[in-house]
Amino acid sequence: MPAFAVVTSDIIAQLQSIAGVEQVSIAQADLALRARDQSHHAAHPGDVVVWPQTGQQVADILRLANACRIPVTPWGMGTSLEGNPIPLYGGILLSLERMTRIVAVHADDFQVTVEPGIGHKDLNAALARHGLFFGPDPGANASIGGMLANNAAGIRTVKYGASKDNVLQMRVALADGRLIRVGSRSVKQSAGYDLLHLFVGSEGTLGVITEATLKLYPIVEHMGAALAAFDSVADAVQAVVAIRGSGLDPAALEFMDAAHATMLREAEGVNLSDHATLFMEFHTPNAQALETGLSLVGSICEELGAVSFRATTDPAERRRLWHARHASYEISVRKYPDQQFYLGDVAVPISAYPALVQYIEQVRTDYGVPLYLIGHAGDGNIHVELPYATDEEYARCVKINGLIVRQAQDLGGTATGEHGVGIGKARHMRDEHGEALDVMYDIKRLLDPNGILNPGKIFPGHDE
Amino acid sequence: MPAFAVVTSDIIAQLQSIAGVEQVSIAQADLALRARDQSHHAAHPGDVVVWPQTGQQVADILRLANACRIPVTPWGMGTSLEGNPIPLYGGILLSLERMTRIVAVHADDFQVTVEPGIGHKDLNAALARHGLFFGPDPGANASIGGMLANNAAGIRTVKYGASKDNVLQMRVALADGRLIRVGSRSVKQSAGYDLLHLFVGSEGTLGVITEATLKLYPIVEHMGAALAAFDSVADAVQAVVAIRGSGLDPAALEFMDAAHATMLREAEGVNLSDHATLFMEFHTPNAQALETGLSLVGSICEELGAVSFRATTDPAERRRLWHARHASYEISVRKYPDQQFYLGDVAVPISAYPALVQYIEQVRTDYGVPLYLIGHAGDGNIHVELPYATDEEYARCVKINGLIVRQAQDLGGTATGEHGVGIGKARHMRDEHGEALDVMYDIKRLLDPNGILNPGKIFPGHDE
Repeated sequence: MPAFAVVTSDIIAQLQSIAGVEQVSIAQADLALRARDQSHHAAHPGDVVVWPQTGQQVADILRLANACRIPVTPWGMGTSLEGNPIPLYGGILLSLERMTRIVAVHADDFQVTVEPGIGHKDLNAALARHGLFFGPDPGANASIGGMLANNAAGIRTVKYGASKDNVLQMRVALADGRLIRVGSRSVKQSAGYDLLHLFVGSEGTLGVITEATLKLYPIVEHMGAALAAFDSVADAVQAVVAIRGSGLDPAALEFMDAAHATMLREAEGVNLSDHATLFMEFHTPNAQALETGLSLVGSICEELGAVSFRATTDPAERRRLWHARHASYEISVRKYPDQQFYLGDVAVPISAYPALVQYIEQVRTDYGVPLYLIGHAGDGNIHVELPYATDEEYARCVKINGLIVRQAQDLGGTATGEHGVGIGKARHMRDEHGEALDVMYDIKRLLDPNGILNPGKIFPGHDE
Repeated sequence: MPAFAVVTSDIIAQLQSIAGVEQVSIAQADLALRARDQSHHAAHPGDVVVWPQTGQQVADILRLANACRIPVTPWGMGTSLEGNPIPLYGGILLSLERMTRIVAVHADDFQVTVEPGIGHKDLNAALARHGLFFGPDPGANASIGGMLANNAAGIRTVKYGASKDNVLQMRVALADGRLIRVGSRSVKQSAGYDLLHLFVGSEGTLGVITEATLKLYPIVEHMGAALAAFDSVADAVQAVVAIRGSGLDPAALEFMDAAHATMLREAEGVNLSDHATLFMEFHTPNAQALETGLSLVGSICEELGAVSFRATTDPAERRRLWHARHASYEISVRKYPDQQFYLGDVAVPISAYPALVQYIEQVRTDYGVPLYLIGHAGDGNIHVELPYATDEEYARCVKINGLIVRQAQDLGGTATGEHGVGIGKARHMRDEHGEALDVMYDIKRLLDPNGILNPGKIFPGHDE
């Protein structure tokens, strides 16, 4: 890790000169509010918060920080789940909270150009009048910049893709103060290296996204939902494969293990049985396609041994069917009021899903701990949720999660499907990437030779 | 451009030692067959052809070439359209023609792992028994490695995406002889930098793809086609926007200008009128959805002033409707027997398509040359086809294409939607990328410091 300089009053004056006096704060409350995200990782404050208002200001701040060797950690909404925006080495907390403009709606192109600080829910509310929406939905009102920087995904990725699939062009500020444009508003691009996707998912370690042009979809008029329960995970996953193979193109295909269903069904408004459960959603251009599709899904689930199947096209009933899934985290938190949750995020090829779930269930048995499974089965992504209270329990969570990560990697999968590497997954990157990790690190040094950009993420200990 | 060494008999002996005596040739016929692709660019032979049979052999060849400063140009099927695999500086022609194995079919994952030399048509023939297919279809039987290296696309990209959207994991040999794995078989990936997409579209200038795991789709059972003619390009494009906005998700949405329709309709089996024409294809999971969809498309086209509309779900009739589109290049070539065709490949946001077409039509009028327009309207991609015979006519093609590229860039688009930069588009990269081109070049130097990988492509003259 390079040696960093401290934030002096002279630096603060220069930041004020770049962004304006009102856009710089060293108030304890401002720093503390941006010292941790929604993950289990410990808080660490920055030394100064800056709220730039233009891409040029972001670039100028980076140029200053680079010249003075001050760490810079970008911040969006703080909703990430792997410590990604925690300013581990202090320095400048670069908050994009005041860059929330919709720069242009290109309705005929199904595109919108935005500043990075806007929340995706806020964006979708504004886009509704155009009959369009941004597909990826990680749940919380994450900022678009944060979603792109972490390649966030969510429950609708099986149909609409992850963040990386829904961006065409960005402006990115580099450590040396250059402000470049990557990608194009053309949906087809074959003109040189794909720098766009190099910055997407780089978690603020290669540059800071100052503007993004996103792909949009026409708002769906016909939505249906279904819920199916199975005796075994293997049966449930066979249904997932068959539903995808039928060409039905589900908009969500979520899995919950029997233990989680059992835990949730005691909560109000939840109607689940003690079985591995699939939650499904379908979006179609017309009502008839929806009816036909739901009927076909019912046949598939029945044929694959579903012990129950319910489907609906009624919006209120759809919300009731999905309530247990949408409220699962809140219900879990209420169930364990004095504990925090350690969250995993592995993903595997769908064919390995039963083996992965079986392994995790075995680990649960071996360690005798509460452990819940919920995940985006359509994408092979699963989150383990482990309640903990003490340091000892936390250490055990780390150990259990390490075992699960290793198993996922051995099954051809990844340590992180959508939360990013952040702080917690860095230790797994060598196993995951082998020599490719050295190429990543070479690119990091190329674009950020002084290591000022979000230090402590993705590569800590690389040189050890 | 770095100074290269010549291919000596010692080098040839070392190549034979790596790949086997049978896999190395300096025969004139072997060199001449791989001296040019299907573009208008002039032929240039390599000094030796090598057909490696494993990824490790590819890596060993690169290590040798790097140590000895010998240029290496990867070769797949030679179907590219911008001179991408022409060995401009001689040296080693690295042919992947003997690496055509299907390594593994992961049917439940809708994935296949292949060696780079297999043709995508050959791959799809082999996958049919599994009920699966690889989506991108550039027309010719391009190799998978070549498609990935150029990010090839084609007529079905509007539904199935370009090559970059259909690859999950690759093995890549680097200039220094390392053989790395990039990406993962997990469809969700958020673990560090996206090296996968850095190599996709890099045209063999950063490394050589030795294996790829591709995404597949279930074979479509219900296909329909439609053909609509419009008085103006603007009307046709409005229909394109409306059809995409309806959520109908066409599998192909092709445009042909009135001049091209007129030229083609004299050929046998073609039934076109002298109008801007849209060719459409729809893939649905059931017959009812197809009927409903085609009827909706008919209403949309009628409402937007189509002068004619034909639709069908019958396979034979579908082929008849599409014959003019599929055979357009062959018909054009027969129409100009003693000439070659200069091919353009610009792409713009769809809203700019009418302005782009209008500009191109004006250029055609100004220069008084035959110029035909055909393109993937659903993606905003258009190809100009310019017949030429003499050097003077060729120079005029270059000039006209340069004007069109500049206009596309000014409209927020790109010099190349799917053919890649190759030889012909390098001169437009500075205008297209600005300072981002320097970042690309820095990455090139990082991964290929001696400039041995496919020299003369993407960056020629960068240092001038």
